[in-house]
Amino acid sequence: MTTCRQRFLDALHCRPTDRPPAWFMRQAGRYLPEYRELRSTQTFMETLADAERAAEITLQPIRRFGMDAAVVFSDILVPLAAMGMGLEFESGVGPVLTPPVRDMDGVRALRDFDPDVAVAHLAETLRICRRELDSDAFASHDLGGRNAGPRGLIGFCGAPFTVASYAVEGRGSRTFEHTKKMMWTEPRTFDALLSRIVDVSLPYLAMQVACGADVLQLFDSWGGALDAATYQRAVLPHLTRLVKGARDLGVPVIVYMNGGSHLLDELLASEPSALAIDWRVVPQVASAKVGPHVALQGNMDPIVLLADAAAVRSETARTLAAFEGHPGYVFNVGSGFVPATVPENVAVALETVRG
Amino acid sequence: MTTCRQRFLDALHCRPTDRPPAWFMRQAGRYLPEYRELRSTQTFMETLADAERAAEITLQPIRRFGMDAAVVFSDILVPLAAMGMGLEFESGVGPVLTPPVRDMDGVRALRDFDPDVAVAHLAETLRICRRELDSDAFASHDLGGRNAGPRGLIGFCGAPFTVASYAVEGRGSRTFEHTKKMMWTEPRTFDALLSRIVDVSLPYLAMQVACGADVLQLFDSWGGALDAATYQRAVLPHLTRLVKGARDLGVPVIVYMNGGSHLLDELLASEPSALAIDWRVVPQVASAKVGPHVALQGNMDPIVLLADAAAVRSETARTLAAFEGHPGYVFNVGSGFVPATVPENVAVALETVRG
Repeated sequence: MTTCRQRFLDALHCRPTDRPPAWFMRQAGRYLPEYRELRSTQTFMETLADAERAAEITLQPIRRFGMDAAVVFSDILVPLAAMGMGLEFESGVGPVLTPPVRDMDGVRALRDFDPDVAVAHLAETLRICRRELDSDAFASHDLGGRNAGPRGLIGFCGAPFTVASYAVEGRGSRTFEHTKKMMWTEPRTFDALLSRIVDVSLPYLAMQVACGADVLQLFDSWGGALDAATYQRAVLPHLTRLVKGARDLGVPVIVYMNGGSHLLDELLASEPSALAIDWRVVPQVASAKVGPHVALQGNMDPIVLLADAAAVRSETARTLAAFEGHPGYVFNVGSGFVPATVPENVAVALETVRG
Repeated sequence: MTTCRQRFLDALHCRPTDRPPAWFMRQAGRYLPEYRELRSTQTFMETLADAERAAEITLQPIRRFGMDAAVVFSDILVPLAAMGMGLEFESGVGPVLTPPVRDMDGVRALRDFDPDVAVAHLAETLRICRRELDSDAFASHDLGGRNAGPRGLIGFCGAPFTVASYAVEGRGSRTFEHTKKMMWTEPRTFDALLSRIVDVSLPYLAMQVACGADVLQLFDSWGGALDAATYQRAVLPHLTRLVKGARDLGVPVIVYMNGGSHLLDELLASEPSALAIDWRVVPQVASAKVGPHVALQGNMDPIVLLADAAAVRSETARTLAAFEGHPGYVFNVGSGFVPATVPENVAVALETVRG
């Protein structure tokens, strides 16, 4: 019988699978009561630093639902903190980074770090997860008779534009005013910042693989804020270096973008193992574009999981049907779960995927 | 010599023009010191109710920069307030509508209104603008020797999905959780809400044309949050009815969407006179898709106008070149001006458009 991990890796290598593997972005999160309980006594940064607890949070959705892969509980901004930026998660605001990087001096102030030392907690979290996911507990955790065995473990980092946007804005943004202004008025500074981000991301990803990650996902959550010509000129060379370096680690590399239906050609040019797309991309169009040797992941609207079971079943089935025929496919949502996600609906979606 | 208004109308009718006409979404706004001064003593709703002042705000950017068209100072949420919803603009939050529409009773509570009575202030604002824009003051306001004469006057309303999303969420949203949940679980309620919005929008637009609007723009600012199949099924019939009704008023109708590069076919199916696109759409792709009888408007990233003059010149020129050859083209940004827009850069962009 195929193990969950093998099914996940097979799909990412565009090899045949008995059914599509499935996991969900932000599957470990606030929608789960057991997550809220574990998080209630700690700040977000404290939880990240507590490897036992971060590992338990990573495993919670697997224990409850039995997805084919776990994604390590961490944050794309961890490397910026390790480079020396102040990082706090403020309630109602989200991440706040201080001081924001606004010029070449700011870029120069970002220091290298040794991931085994600076983010030792993440290394330990991954090692615990790897051990647990390979243990008998999960091998015998047989939901529906077809998803036993070890699970995949996904490590990740942010892609260059997305990480740079947080460094420059100092927080989340809808308009990326400071980031784009830097790109247009100080292109050398912008270029140097993206280079530095890739420089530190590569050993950071290598550490994650060394500690047990089977697969890496690169989140370019906000890259879709750029037009195609600008993305190609100012960002793609950096993304390509990151993807190539990550693939050289010997694991499949998934590139994800939210709102990037206009950038499929550019993302594909970075040569990922798989492209993770949102619901704005028509699956058949993506399949034709990426061809038979690049896997696809996605792309259901996560807000479907706030609706009722009938809608979840029909939208999940619609998603599966749309990707049918693509040689490598991983079921997922097109962006991360929101806190109002209904846990019972997650089970319904997974039942539908499992046929 | 072509007047500004004629140039604008010619472009929207895909007739030849001496140069592309130009205006900017949210050209009357907080980036202008004269706007901040006029707004300093009134709330947003008070200013809308003060026709003299709203008209002056509409005309401010024309006085300073001489764009080819003015867009009436109003808000897409005005009809929801006229239907009986509470509407306040809270600092740092944006619009807040009470109570949010969450079920069929909420839809039924939305009442019809007579635009000449319920929004008499907007009618008066438009009449003042029309008179001023046709007056000698503007006919002699000759910037660069080629833009004298009366200006176009743009009326507008929100498109069905966008207005519905505010009614259902009660405020702005990134995820549209309540709106999409209604769409999937209570499709009849969702459909009834969109119908009601179109019902009241048509006389609302007719009033604007009767009071002097030359052109109508329909803002589907958030429609891009839906996948294409869902938009086509649940929204397009309502948009099409609105566009058809608006065109029956005898004026060109522009349909605008932000983040809608994946919905061009659907927007085109509503048969607008012009499609307004953002920078995520490649102009040549849009041009091939819409053909020679639908005009295009857009699509520069408005954040360019926070950069320096050199960047503004080159990005404006790149935008103009990309639309060259399309029979009807109106220069604009791809989404509204942000408050940090640099007024001097607006002048540079317009100089570049004027050649």
